[in-house]
Amino acid sequence: MSSTSKRGLSEFALIAKLFAPLATAKAAAGLKDDVAVLAENARSDLVLKTDAIVEGVHFLKDDPPETVARKALRVNLSDLAAKGADPVGYLMVLARPAHVTDKWLKAFSAGLKSDQQRFSLSLLGGDTVRMPGPLVIAITAIGRVPKDKAIRRWGAKPGDLVFVTGTIGDAGLGLELLKQKRRSPRGPIEKYRLPQPRLAFGRKLRGLASASIDVSDGLLQDLGHIADVSRVCVEIDAVRVPLSRALQTAWGRDERATLRAASAGDDYEIAFTCRPDRAARVRAAARAAKVPVTQIGEITRGKGVVLLDADGKKIPIGRKGYQHFG
Amino acid sequence: MSSTSKRGLSEFALIAKLFAPLATAKAAAGLKDDVAVLAENARSDLVLKTDAIVEGVHFLKDDPPETVARKALRVNLSDLAAKGADPVGYLMVLARPAHVTDKWLKAFSAGLKSDQQRFSLSLLGGDTVRMPGPLVIAITAIGRVPKDKAIRRWGAKPGDLVFVTGTIGDAGLGLELLKQKRRSPRGPIEKYRLPQPRLAFGRKLRGLASASIDVSDGLLQDLGHIADVSRVCVEIDAVRVPLSRALQTAWGRDERATLRAASAGDDYEIAFTCRPDRAARVRAAARAAKVPVTQIGEITRGKGVVLLDADGKKIPIGRKGYQHFG
Repeated sequence: MSSTSKRGLSEFALIAKLFAPLATAKAAAGLKDDVAVLAENARSDLVLKTDAIVEGVHFLKDDPPETVARKALRVNLSDLAAKGADPVGYLMVLARPAHVTDKWLKAFSAGLKSDQQRFSLSLLGGDTVRMPGPLVIAITAIGRVPKDKAIRRWGAKPGDLVFVTGTIGDAGLGLELLKQKRRSPRGPIEKYRLPQPRLAFGRKLRGLASASIDVSDGLLQDLGHIADVSRVCVEIDAVRVPLSRALQTAWGRDERATLRAASAGDDYEIAFTCRPDRAARVRAAARAAKVPVTQIGEITRGKGVVLLDADGKKIPIGRKGYQHFG
Repeated sequence: MSSTSKRGLSEFALIAKLFAPLATAKAAAGLKDDVAVLAENARSDLVLKTDAIVEGVHFLKDDPPETVARKALRVNLSDLAAKGADPVGYLMVLARPAHVTDKWLKAFSAGLKSDQQRFSLSLLGGDTVRMPGPLVIAITAIGRVPKDKAIRRWGAKPGDLVFVTGTIGDAGLGLELLKQKRRSPRGPIEKYRLPQPRLAFGRKLRGLASASIDVSDGLLQDLGHIADVSRVCVEIDAVRVPLSRALQTAWGRDERATLRAASAGDDYEIAFTCRPDRAARVRAAARAAKVPVTQIGEITRGKGVVLLDADGKKIPIGRKGYQHFG
């Protein structure tokens, strides 16, 4: 069970305490991953993930309906990508307030259609409910992986390298810009509105990555989940965290900017680990998928996430950064 | 895609127009059923259903958290029951407003635990999101049926008999009582707060029922879905619609009371059809499962739902009753 509520320690601890004991099936793995992996047949497993977006929290009321639809779908596809799964279909709940017009919904469904074609999946069913509050879109995505090939959170081993796709923090900057009613730079705003699930690359990570997670709650926080369930320490070199030019211009390129970027949510990149002897294959796969990847650190014995400065000293991670899960 | 929004014709028409074309996969069957049926392996199919409940719409703010949790789960289990499926697991989105305390959530999770044990299923995953509005619980339930044995909406044939489990309208009365701050009679209030998914009986309907649906949006409206996709007319004898004593006391037992009961939502009973030569087996199955069933009508050539009085004359069904889907 993941949380995008940014409530910090107490929320994670509460979820772990209240809901992990309910995950009794093998497929749920005690909620140590944020997907369920259900044995399908002798050749394949199904990967199941549910995630919701809320008006005023994960998107803004005046965001285009097409991008709201696509974001609702993509935040789930991003999880499938991180597990190396191919999309199959999705179910959707629309909790619809009175201000959502038929015209808005028409554009919304056009957004879904466009992404269904792009990512090869189908609507499988859904429910609309009346909503005396903000619009909520809850999607459950279903993917498929070859038998036992889902990339889990718990396979990281000391000595493994840590990679991340794309750049970090842009969506957080995009949200900040939108809240300031600014319309440029476009890059970060686009990144906030329309994440790019790394499905083609995720598929190539099967059998290559030792652990993987999609970066949705902030890089440091999400790497913390890998650290926890793999029972290792994730050491990140601050200077290696990939920041876009737009972000460096807006927030700077010092440690503080890095910490801010690595604590911002909504990146929907993949953070993953691999054995050093597989790094060349990982880089080749990234080139083939035309996805930038950056090695940002390595796995060591210990626990938690450590952010190191250029001298190898620990940078203090404040309360807004990484929050421990258990 | 079903709707519990009670918006009437335009909502259903809009959903049919906007979302049915997105249901391109065979498993979705063009949204003609309210579940997806996904081939699992040579022996079984998975049945997938998503349904949400919203504070102030499907439950009340001061409802006990245990029953809110159990209702959220059971409205989905009811769909599995109507399809003859056995529960496997569920994924859950909690959109959590600030007024939902940790204590409330603790009782909520205890409610889930109790029903998981009762109905033999496991939490598989979930997501919590911050919510600047009412509490929303969206659940996706996963069930399993023997290969090709899911009972669909479209198998009703002229001459088939129409049955319904339990009594109709009680949950609607229960909601009315709660809104009037009344605490008795208990029966209807319990029925509103805690539906009884007919899983044991639904399982026995495999191979017996020709079409089946769970009654969530009102008996007439839901039978309308069977009429539409089976391309038949569903003829109901008003006098046969089973009404509880509590409901007869509160609303009367005339045609108007029957129409009101058959238009109220939240029953979570199963309405189904079967060939006349299978009726004896249906009744035996109901006795074995200790579930009351009542034959309320039959399938004829034609379309839509017709409610007949004791003289065989059509009772006008107003706008609040049955709404056509397509």
